[in-house]
Amino acid sequence: MRARLIGIGPGGPDELTVAAVHALNDVDVFLVADKQRGVDDLVSVREEICRRHITGEYRVIVVPDPPRDRAPERYGNEVRDWHAARAEAYETVLREQVLDGETVGFLVWGDPSLYDSTIRVVERIRERGIVDLDYDVIPGVSSVQMLAARHRLVLNRIGGPITITTGRRLARDVAAGGDNLVVMLDGGLACTELPGEWDIWWGANLGTSDEELVAGRLSEVRGRIEAARARSKSARGWVMDTYLLRRA
Amino acid sequence: MRARLIGIGPGGPDELTVAAVHALNDVDVFLVADKQRGVDDLVSVREEICRRHITGEYRVIVVPDPPRDRAPERYGNEVRDWHAARAEAYETVLREQVLDGETVGFLVWGDPSLYDSTIRVVERIRERGIVDLDYDVIPGVSSVQMLAARHRLVLNRIGGPITITTGRRLARDVAAGGDNLVVMLDGGLACTELPGEWDIWWGANLGTSDEELVAGRLSEVRGRIEAARARSKSARGWVMDTYLLRRA
Ligand SMILES: C[S@@+](CC[C@H](N)C(=O)[O-])C[C@H]1O[C@@H](n2cnc3c(N)ncnc32)[C@H](O)[C@@H]1O
Ligand SMILES: C[S@@+](CC[C@H](N)C(=O)[O-])C[C@H]1O[C@@H](n2cnc3c(N)ncnc32)[C@H](O)[C@@H]1O
Repeated sequence: MRARLIGIGPGGPDELTVAAVHALNDVDVFLVADKQRGVDDLVSVREEICRRHITGEYRVIVVPDPPRDRAPERYGNEVRDWHAARAEAYETVLREQVLDGETVGFLVWGDPSLYDSTIRVVERIRERGIVDLDYDVIPGVSSVQMLAARHRLVLNRIGGPITITTGRRLARDVAAGGDNLVVMLDGGLACTELPGEWDIWWGANLGTSDEELVAGRLSEVRGRIEAARARSKSARGWVMDTYLLRRA
Repeated sequence: MRARLIGIGPGGPDELTVAAVHALNDVDVFLVADKQRGVDDLVSVREEICRRHITGEYRVIVVPDPPRDRAPERYGNEVRDWHAARAEAYETVLREQVLDGETVGFLVWGDPSLYDSTIRVVERIRERGIVDLDYDVIPGVSSVQMLAARHRLVLNRIGGPITITTGRRLARDVAAGGDNLVVMLDGGLACTELPGEWDIWWGANLGTSDEELVAGRLSEVRGRIEAARARSKSARGWVMDTYLLRRA
């Protein structure tokens, strides 16, 4: 059995590559995680991508996502348990509903190499040794690139480094000297807790029709960002945001 | 006048997004830098992209690149001087060879937000105030994403950060605690000078027909990487390589 992990970009239906479109058209069965949260827009972008870019026939199998503890004591372990549970759920579907010569597709939000579990879950399935599965990865535009494009930013200062990190890790990476950081997976604007003055280039729901952009001195634009986050949360029930933070 | 800065991906002719294809088809005149180095393959990928994905008419203007000191005393200043010279060269072409209502296109290797000068040069032209120029940026898959895809890598450890840096900066970023780094713009495998044991996932000419991949413990695979770099250099006169480095 063959799997293709296809990066579909961070939002819009045309933000995937031509190579990704070719890969989509090569897939017999898509496995889609049912997140059981109100992330309807993500589902509808995925559906629109398939509708718009696939010319032939294909099946879609929705796989219920294992429940997940969102505020665990030990983050790494919790994630690993969840990967294992997800691998078992997918393995069952592969054994019961996919034929040997078929090609399975996974639609991966943004780029598969950045804070995404699909590669790790597929590696788990392979380690288990029950399903004979080979796979390849089709890269996609990540939300980081979309953030930069919308703000017309170069992420690096001339010749300088970029740290990509999470809200949870931000304070530690700044304490270690990071002063040019992209922050993802931040549930509550961790940057507002940092000492010192920062410039921020913030974006939410990038690539979608509800895109929000704010840039400026953090202390001055913080209120606007909080208002935009609240607006998105009340409209959709959630917000996906990313930002570049640079010491002023 | 309007400019579109279009990320074309890191190598292959189909590694640009569908949105980028739409943008290409919106351009009247492409401005292409003539690098006067033996980078014929880059030129031919660009030509193939236009041939394959543009349906209408378009012009191409080749702009000679200002000469550049590759080993300057002061890197930042030298780069800024070069941006200024390039801005003037483009401005002259825009004034003399492009009509007011036309759309200008710049094909940017990989993604425009990562170690690329096009945004900075266009900002310079705007600052000069002589040509009235608005622009947007279309994100692309960067060589970092292509590296990760080919090695089927997740760039971050679970919940952990990623440093993206250059060969020139690598030792400093490792000294500051970086232990999961993507290195670009490295003329001579700076990683081999680092203390300690490292794992490396290396790739050259990613997305092209001469792609080279090596992964393993750095001390063990170093010879293979050096041989692959030499092979590419003798075949093409140059090599474009990127790698992920993780403390073992
Ligand atoms: C689980 S990670 C997946 C990242 C994804 N693989 C990528 O390449 O962008 C989810 C995080 O990505 C960021 N993100 C994803 N899509 C986004 C979007 N359209 N706008 C803003 N941020 C986004 C947010 O920081 C979110 O918390
Ligand atoms: C001036 S930077 C431009 C990076 C580009 N904007 C991107 O998004 O990949 C050039 C560096 O990118 C990396 N690079 C670009 N294309 C590559 C490829 N096809 N294979 C490997 N590395 C590449 C190399 O590290 C090279 O030194």
